[in-house]
Amino acid sequence: MTRVADRMLVAGVGLIGGSLALAARDAGLVGEIIGFGRTRANLEVAAQRGLIDRIATEPAVAMAGVDLVLLATPVGSCGAVASALRPHARAGTILTDAGSVKALVVDVMEQAWGAAGPVVGAHPIAGSEAYGAGAARVDLFRGRLCVLTPNPQTDRRALQTVRALWEGVGAVVEELAPASHDAILARVSHLPHMVAAALVTAVTQARVDGRPLDSFVGSGFRDSTRIAASRAELWRDIARANAAALGLAIDEFRQVLDLLADAIARDDVAALDQLLGGAERGRRALGGLS
Amino acid sequence: MTRVADRMLVAGVGLIGGSLALAARDAGLVGEIIGFGRTRANLEVAAQRGLIDRIATEPAVAMAGVDLVLLATPVGSCGAVASALRPHARAGTILTDAGSVKALVVDVMEQAWGAAGPVVGAHPIAGSEAYGAGAARVDLFRGRLCVLTPNPQTDRRALQTVRALWEGVGAVVEELAPASHDAILARVSHLPHMVAAALVTAVTQARVDGRPLDSFVGSGFRDSTRIAASRAELWRDIARANAAALGLAIDEFRQVLDLLADAIARDDVAALDQLLGGAERGRRALGGLS
Repeated sequence: MTRVADRMLVAGVGLIGGSLALAARDAGLVGEIIGFGRTRANLEVAAQRGLIDRIATEPAVAMAGVDLVLLATPVGSCGAVASALRPHARAGTILTDAGSVKALVVDVMEQAWGAAGPVVGAHPIAGSEAYGAGAARVDLFRGRLCVLTPNPQTDRRALQTVRALWEGVGAVVEELAPASHDAILARVSHLPHMVAAALVTAVTQARVDGRPLDSFVGSGFRDSTRIAASRAELWRDIARANAAALGLAIDEFRQVLDLLADAIARDDVAALDQLLGGAERGRRALGGLS
Repeated sequence: MTRVADRMLVAGVGLIGGSLALAARDAGLVGEIIGFGRTRANLEVAAQRGLIDRIATEPAVAMAGVDLVLLATPVGSCGAVASALRPHARAGTILTDAGSVKALVVDVMEQAWGAAGPVVGAHPIAGSEAYGAGAARVDLFRGRLCVLTPNPQTDRRALQTVRALWEGVGAVVEELAPASHDAILARVSHLPHMVAAALVTAVTQARVDGRPLDSFVGSGFRDSTRIAASRAELWRDIARANAAALGLAIDEFRQVLDLLADAIARDDVAALDQLLGGAERGRRALGGLS
């Protein structure tokens, strides 16, 4: 496997950053990996597990000799972290990320990184409600999609380097315009998260005969709300950074739910058969069932 | 294990009826089990798998010597099936069911069964999107909750017989008033199903740059919509039979989703933190996470 970087800095060594570090090392894609972050205890777990070669907490020390920086922090922190690292960047150092929102985040990274080097937006579509360096897995990205979001300014060589990194850890890489990525993820990922959070909230607040309903929750409810257990801080940032597209996605969803509620209220059997039958066929077509 | 019935008729030998037959036989709770249904091929699978001793398609033959009838059909069919069987019922034959809605279904069963014998409403909270006799499992109800919904008319001896049946297959039995059961299940089960169906419909209808979004769907979306793959016919019946409680549950959910959408539109960080943080803690408290 060809080297993609001699020294890579991973800022935010959690599930995503830690798994990328582990998989990149495993594939021989990078020389040395430096872990940078705000939580010392998490960085120590990362070092103990061998995800990173060493810990750096000072930007000047962290950036020495680094030719590739991966931001794997909550998306709301990407600008501040890039700004803190930039004064210490060697000319030409590539800045990339792994955030779930791209248009705003790529803009913010480009502004923060300025003339320091090329910026490439990336989003590996993988993860779970687990988090932290302890949850990192070498195979997290294997066979998963990683979307790269170049814009007209994006440096083509840096784009190829970031592509080689993600393909090297087993991801299937696809390129999309940042706004297209955000419109798609708003619907397939950010909307389901907000819906799951609303379901959990509504059901945990509900009382019947004065009793909470927790003991009646079954595997269907648990599966359908599992994503709501992910870290709220990450999802707050995602919702804020993709507010416009997410607002549209919520509206589309509400329109369908209103149709269903209306069909139930009117006892419209044909409409119920059409809506529920279409959903059954649509869901079966997506696969992943027992 | 004490016998609860000499001869049990299971009407609808699918995932629920077939699993109950298999588990009841396994536990020595019944003498002979007759399978009754509309789909010959499914009944033959049930017989081949040893879920039932024999197949009956004529009510008069099916009911001969039967002292316990379990209706495990879609809830919308319970009245018609009970009416078809009743003329052939031996005096005192217990009629029970496994439906996901209780108030209306118990009413319909009581009307259809009349003086033929006692009626006991039951709902084992177990299942999956799999269906048919081929999906039946001996351990489906082990450790799961089964709600019995007696009303003031319910015969206490028949209630104890049905309790013994479900406890005998490993379920944890709880008694609730039919309306309480329906208010609870509307929220923890019927609402999530409608939400999942609306999510699948909205996302499969959406296009970004003219393309469908299927290839971007990840494990989060698949998990959160798995229940929408269940048979639409079952859920249409459930939605119709529990329309009032389900309408209220959808309204409660919409209110929370509107709060979230509003917080996103106003970029209200405190409201987002409160809603998403509350959902994270609420979901973690429900367990069943990786």
